[in-house]
Amino acid sequence: MPQQVTIFDTTLRDGTQGEGVSLTVEDKLKIAAKLDDLGIHYIEGGWPGSNGKDIEFFKRVASLSLKHAKVTAFGSTRRKGVKPEEDGNLKAILESGVRVATIFGKSWDFQVTTALQTTLEENEAMIYDSVRYLKEQGLEVIYDAEHFFDGYKNNRDYALGTIRKAEAAGADWIVLCDTNGGSMPGEIAAIVADVVASVKTPIGIHAHNDCELGVANSLAAVQAGARQVQGTFNGLGERCGNANLVSVIPNLQLKLGGYRCVSDEQLATLTSAARYVSEIANVGMPVNQPYVGSAAFAHKGGIHVSAVLRHSKTYEHIEPELVGNRQRVLVSELAGQSNLVFKAQEMNLDFDLENESTKRLIQTIKDMEHRGYQFEGADASLELLIRKAYDKQENVFTIESFKLLVEKTGDNPVASEAIVKVKVHGETVYTAAEGNGPVNALDNALRKALETYYPDIRDIHLTDYKVRVINEKDATAAKVRVLIESSDFDASWNTVGVSENVIEASWEAILDSIRYALIGRTVVLDNREEKHERIGIVNH
Amino acid sequence: MPQQVTIFDTTLRDGTQGEGVSLTVEDKLKIAAKLDDLGIHYIEGGWPGSNGKDIEFFKRVASLSLKHAKVTAFGSTRRKGVKPEEDGNLKAILESGVRVATIFGKSWDFQVTTALQTTLEENEAMIYDSVRYLKEQGLEVIYDAEHFFDGYKNNRDYALGTIRKAEAAGADWIVLCDTNGGSMPGEIAAIVADVVASVKTPIGIHAHNDCELGVANSLAAVQAGARQVQGTFNGLGERCGNANLVSVIPNLQLKLGGYRCVSDEQLATLTSAARYVSEIANVGMPVNQPYVGSAAFAHKGGIHVSAVLRHSKTYEHIEPELVGNRQRVLVSELAGQSNLVFKAQEMNLDFDLENESTKRLIQTIKDMEHRGYQFEGADASLELLIRKAYDKQENVFTIESFKLLVEKTGDNPVASEAIVKVKVHGETVYTAAEGNGPVNALDNALRKALETYYPDIRDIHLTDYKVRVINEKDATAAKVRVLIESSDFDASWNTVGVSENVIEASWEAILDSIRYALIGRTVVLDNREEKHERIGIVNH
Repeated sequence: MPQQVTIFDTTLRDGTQGEGVSLTVEDKLKIAAKLDDLGIHYIEGGWPGSNGKDIEFFKRVASLSLKHAKVTAFGSTRRKGVKPEEDGNLKAILESGVRVATIFGKSWDFQVTTALQTTLEENEAMIYDSVRYLKEQGLEVIYDAEHFFDGYKNNRDYALGTIRKAEAAGADWIVLCDTNGGSMPGEIAAIVADVVASVKTPIGIHAHNDCELGVANSLAAVQAGARQVQGTFNGLGERCGNANLVSVIPNLQLKLGGYRCVSDEQLATLTSAARYVSEIANVGMPVNQPYVGSAAFAHKGGIHVSAVLRHSKTYEHIEPELVGNRQRVLVSELAGQSNLVFKAQEMNLDFDLENESTKRLIQTIKDMEHRGYQFEGADASLELLIRKAYDKQENVFTIESFKLLVEKTGDNPVASEAIVKVKVHGETVYTAAEGNGPVNALDNALRKALETYYPDIRDIHLTDYKVRVINEKDATAAKVRVLIESSDFDASWNTVGVSENVIEASWEAILDSIRYALIGRTVVLDNREEKHERIGIVNH
Repeated sequence: MPQQVTIFDTTLRDGTQGEGVSLTVEDKLKIAAKLDDLGIHYIEGGWPGSNGKDIEFFKRVASLSLKHAKVTAFGSTRRKGVKPEEDGNLKAILESGVRVATIFGKSWDFQVTTALQTTLEENEAMIYDSVRYLKEQGLEVIYDAEHFFDGYKNNRDYALGTIRKAEAAGADWIVLCDTNGGSMPGEIAAIVADVVASVKTPIGIHAHNDCELGVANSLAAVQAGARQVQGTFNGLGERCGNANLVSVIPNLQLKLGGYRCVSDEQLATLTSAARYVSEIANVGMPVNQPYVGSAAFAHKGGIHVSAVLRHSKTYEHIEPELVGNRQRVLVSELAGQSNLVFKAQEMNLDFDLENESTKRLIQTIKDMEHRGYQFEGADASLELLIRKAYDKQENVFTIESFKLLVEKTGDNPVASEAIVKVKVHGETVYTAAEGNGPVNALDNALRKALETYYPDIRDIHLTDYKVRVINEKDATAAKVRVLIESSDFDASWNTVGVSENVIEASWEAILDSIRYALIGRTVVLDNREEKHERIGIVNH
């Protein structure tokens, strides 16, 4: 029987301490619902004693009717010299209406005297009184022992003494915090093992990532006997972040052996949950994020790719589907033809390397890569090339010309205007638009020209724009590669453009993006709607 | 006596396998020089048998005269059924001129039969013959045992047998690779300990980050007896990246106790080296990157901040200066100040932080950094700001207006024209120029306007041009930061521009570059030559 490990998520509290992270109450409710779907056991919603936004969250979260998760409110132990029933912070927890309180107290003697400026005895009383009071009010109490590892290293007896007070007062969990994130896995393992042997209350771990060991320290603690892991989604949090639950959960469940956190079905939604939190929190997820990043199971090198096609386990540590991710093969100059074959298979294309069209296509891609194109981050541009080679591309519009004017006079802001002449369904559209930059002006003008025919185009947004200088020898005359990511409600896709001219490169990527988006869209002509069928590559 | 751990950097080889990472030969040379300054012991420059760019790197790196680092070339063992002296891959290593070869071979029986499609005996012979041959040619040989941990778990005897062959053939190092990045720290520790007890050759570790354990696995291996760590800067690399040396080094040197990688002085340049690699590779460094990110020692929560001010060790696991980073308090930020003090010292400026000009200057820089400027890579722009604050800037020219026209008709190439109106020494110059891109056209027009007055301007060349999108959320309306490097015969300097408009940002960086270049230049007015003295900040 695998051991159950309880997962405690603090994205909504500790996560919001990260630089650039700010969540509205709406955001928090959305994330809470998603975490509940994933099977997270505790969701720490905020610190009601510290701000009004958190109080509103606790009011509204009740109406979500979460299926699995218990919602918990955070706060400190009572202040020095104050009775628990008169402490504003503990009152706020009770008023929040949660059934689980998470309160933190000091374990490090140095901190008690310097930060708290009280006696070691009063600190112990603060812990005991606060836990006891909340238990008497009928709450489940999770006691977070702040700075536990630093405290233990400095004065083992005092640190152990503080958590014994929490145990004596009836705490349901004692969670050891590596608040500064400075401990090494070996230390964590030894100290957790000692604590597990010293108290009866179940133990948890709260690790930070300051040494890039947040995940490793959480695993070390579980192996030493901890049964709760606190952390955040995508490792959000102050400084270098908290332990990343998105890596902790699959490591515990798929790798260490003998532990279980959520169901297999829930685990298979991990990737989409991680991306959802990233979107809601408006914090970009690195493409190379372990398990769930879009590059986590991507293969680039030619040698690797041919081996991956033969046996995926040779270069993949798990089946990506277990965490809801998928294998990708990046097409790049370092890779051989096998990358292209893989892409064609993904498109269900009947792909014959001996075919003349295929040979021409491979030659075209080689030439383009030589000129600085890179298709590993531009699936949609690659698909357009393949469609073109196989005569599966609709020529929805043709650009006859574009003109761009950028002007600055005196202290006025720079003005950018674009004029485009586009042929769409036999008609010539000539239009102009402004923008807050040249590329934006061009993008606006093109959309304006096509909008009458394709009203859906309004749903498409450019969501990422990257510029890379390819050959820096000639400086401003150097080539640039522009990568654009576009999204609508259903999907996102990537396109590429290359030129000595940053405007032309951007334009090319915009054109590919719109061309790809228009595949299979409905065109509106003189109030007649005509469905453009997505040309069937699947049934070819 | 601390134990020496050898650091082997493969940013230039394995790092370039990462999605979106692409380095020119110039980029690679710059990074190699920086890694050498930091005291890295081995720099793997590329795979000469796999592409022409890497061959050029090895040709040119010799002229860098590195102080500490040995440069090594990567390659596979000989192909099956081929003599080593006839193997193209081994030949390419020899022809690259390196004194150290790093060759990889198979350790996993499953891989030998499926990926390599040969016999277990032939694979052993391939390892032995290749190491032996390179040793006979006088090279130091590092043997990378690919998939060692998977191989060991599947068939311990065969995996150990393969590295015994490398040892028998005279390998100087045997490096155990967790190629798929799927192993847990406990497994790594146990297997490394077994290997260390089984062979005499020094052992290294090559870990990947697929389980967010690349750093932890590297440390576990060292604690079990490995004495070389392979990894990349900022953890660049295929899929989820390689072990991040930027975290491995300080963990070994400052945390585990008893290990040494580089000198204390070199360690104190870690942050700037990591940022330099990020800039050159044009791969953004997360603000929360451990040890070196700008948020790694940033404090946001009110409670933390007051405690940090009281005793920084309560919320910082090390002194940030040990790795060249610094404390930041997000509520009352003093960004840029340390750069500024450093720069002012470099300019021999009598710099008083209490002076009103200085206070205004700090405020200006703070505001600019908030808007996306970054002066770490733009010394010349920073010097211009300091000169302006101290009234030490000659206003050699003023821009009255510029206009830029970019046009494309049919299949003709894109035409770029710029018109500038510039006031120089009381005269108004109105001129126009073409370029093979909009920025190039602007640069040409400005030079043309100034050339009559400053003929030397012809010697200046823009040698590097980088564009970075700062906030990717608004796609083509996002802000961009442009960094330009310019050179003449004597020196090179860097400038920065920021705007929503890529043209305006580039223009700003070009203006700074030319302004900086003109300091102290000879002006030609009506055939009279007049020497502009460089305004003396040194003797101020």
